[in-house]
Amino acid sequence: MSLLVVGTVAFDAIETPFGKTDKIIGGSGTYGALSASYFTNKTNICAVVGDDFLGSDIKMLNKHGVNTEGLQIKEGEKSFFWSGKYHNDMNTRDTLATELNVLADFDPVIPESYQGCEYLMLGNLTPQIQKTVIERLHKRPKLIVMDTMNFWMEVALDDLKETMKMVDVLSINDEEARQLSGEHSLVKAAQKIIALGPKVLIIKKGEHGALLFNENQVFFAPALPLEDVFDPTGAGDTFAGGFIGYLASTNDTSFENMKRAIIYGSALASFCVEKFGCERLVELSDETLNARVKEFIDLVQFEIEMA
Amino acid sequence: MSLLVVGTVAFDAIETPFGKTDKIIGGSGTYGALSASYFTNKTNICAVVGDDFLGSDIKMLNKHGVNTEGLQIKEGEKSFFWSGKYHNDMNTRDTLATELNVLADFDPVIPESYQGCEYLMLGNLTPQIQKTVIERLHKRPKLIVMDTMNFWMEVALDDLKETMKMVDVLSINDEEARQLSGEHSLVKAAQKIIALGPKVLIIKKGEHGALLFNENQVFFAPALPLEDVFDPTGAGDTFAGGFIGYLASTNDTSFENMKRAIIYGSALASFCVEKFGCERLVELSDETLNARVKEFIDLVQFEIEMA
Repeated sequence: MSLLVVGTVAFDAIETPFGKTDKIIGGSGTYGALSASYFTNKTNICAVVGDDFLGSDIKMLNKHGVNTEGLQIKEGEKSFFWSGKYHNDMNTRDTLATELNVLADFDPVIPESYQGCEYLMLGNLTPQIQKTVIERLHKRPKLIVMDTMNFWMEVALDDLKETMKMVDVLSINDEEARQLSGEHSLVKAAQKIIALGPKVLIIKKGEHGALLFNENQVFFAPALPLEDVFDPTGAGDTFAGGFIGYLASTNDTSFENMKRAIIYGSALASFCVEKFGCERLVELSDETLNARVKEFIDLVQFEIEMA
Repeated sequence: MSLLVVGTVAFDAIETPFGKTDKIIGGSGTYGALSASYFTNKTNICAVVGDDFLGSDIKMLNKHGVNTEGLQIKEGEKSFFWSGKYHNDMNTRDTLATELNVLADFDPVIPESYQGCEYLMLGNLTPQIQKTVIERLHKRPKLIVMDTMNFWMEVALDDLKETMKMVDVLSINDEEARQLSGEHSLVKAAQKIIALGPKVLIIKKGEHGALLFNENQVFFAPALPLEDVFDPTGAGDTFAGGFIGYLASTNDTSFENMKRAIIYGSALASFCVEKFGCERLVELSDETLNARVKEFIDLVQFEIEMA
């Protein structure tokens, strides 16, 4: 099934305890589309960049089967730029620079060839733009996954709640779930958030894994214990992209299949953090990915015979 | 197989956001033995209390099949007392009082009937006393599980390292593993700690579950997402007691069986936190326990067919 990924395509400059980068390609749309491309060869991206964006990066996306027809290039403008420095624990970071540039007046254009997509990933962006994308699709996709962040809960909560009502799956982290619901218990938080619209909620807990909730069920996927986390940038977007990419490729939106999708998303995210930016994400083979998924199976599999 | 649990048997006074208790029975030995008693009816306890200890609490332990022959009662002395207040997040607490009392010069006496025990749980106590217990057993048990805490890393590190060399399984939390190893990555921390002596390391991560490591393998057990954590006191001891109790009852110390044991330990710990102290732990039926284990299976079970 075809997948549309909407998000940012941007430049990031990243500093971690292991080193630092110049401007490299980043953004929720980039990570989401690259991750999804391991499952489906019908990944379309909708995003905007400036004329400083490199042709080689567009070619890289195309090489991974990502259709960039919906990637607007604004002449005379600069691409969105983010710069951040991670602390030693890798769980916290300081934002050094955020230059919206082309993102300030991003008006998503959906090419005709994208119409009819069955799966839609709304990567982290203003909730208003996420909503606009849904409205500009002639036919509602079979499944819409929305990623967002605490920033929008602070500056655009009404828009966020509006858009949340229109999606099937919401993906946020544990602190965001607590902030959005006002509940410390993630079980209670999930119930409150599901009552706000999305049928399924994913709560990402970083190195502690992820929880998948629907109204009646809960599933837990671990994160792989890693020797080193080199750079966490994009891990959440990669996770979401792998999740929806797997669902699109199998065209099965049951809770059972979402469990599998979350394991694949976690596996992709575990690669993402091994190198800077999407360096690791662009070089995986099917064998490498399958071996990693096997590690997840071994990590949690046990056998107990119940009477 | 018979199990010996050594630890504290004490009075606790606990305050949580949900309420507070008077002095109630607590201690690492109490939680460990009660938890283990759900698996083996040959649980022996070695500990010391004062003459303020209640006969009804001894009867409660006996009723659960815990042999209290090795529970010394010191006339004219008072039982160990701890009092603490949990913060709203339930992950941090203030210690309001610690009165060592009888614990100050605890000299563990091993009754003849305890000799020959195949499984030994060294609940949290000074590492020196834990070592003395091993030395006073005529025959080394088949499996020794040792629980400890950061306090002993600060005031008795040499003793701790000495005792660690004599045990099979060490159980500590994530921050303690980082402190003991000087490594932030839990994978690296586990390798360093296993090099110090124990063949198996359990890293408890509270609401984020637990990791089980040996030299070559790793297993992850989730914690059950709960609506409310009422009182976390004793959860770690309950976990360790359930773990070794299951191993003792099955008499199988393979890594595969330790996976099952950790799930049972996690299930017992998930009950422990539902009420104050060991209130919930003394009232479980086999049906209730099995239903909870089933919840753990449902929580993490997924099926992926690998090519």
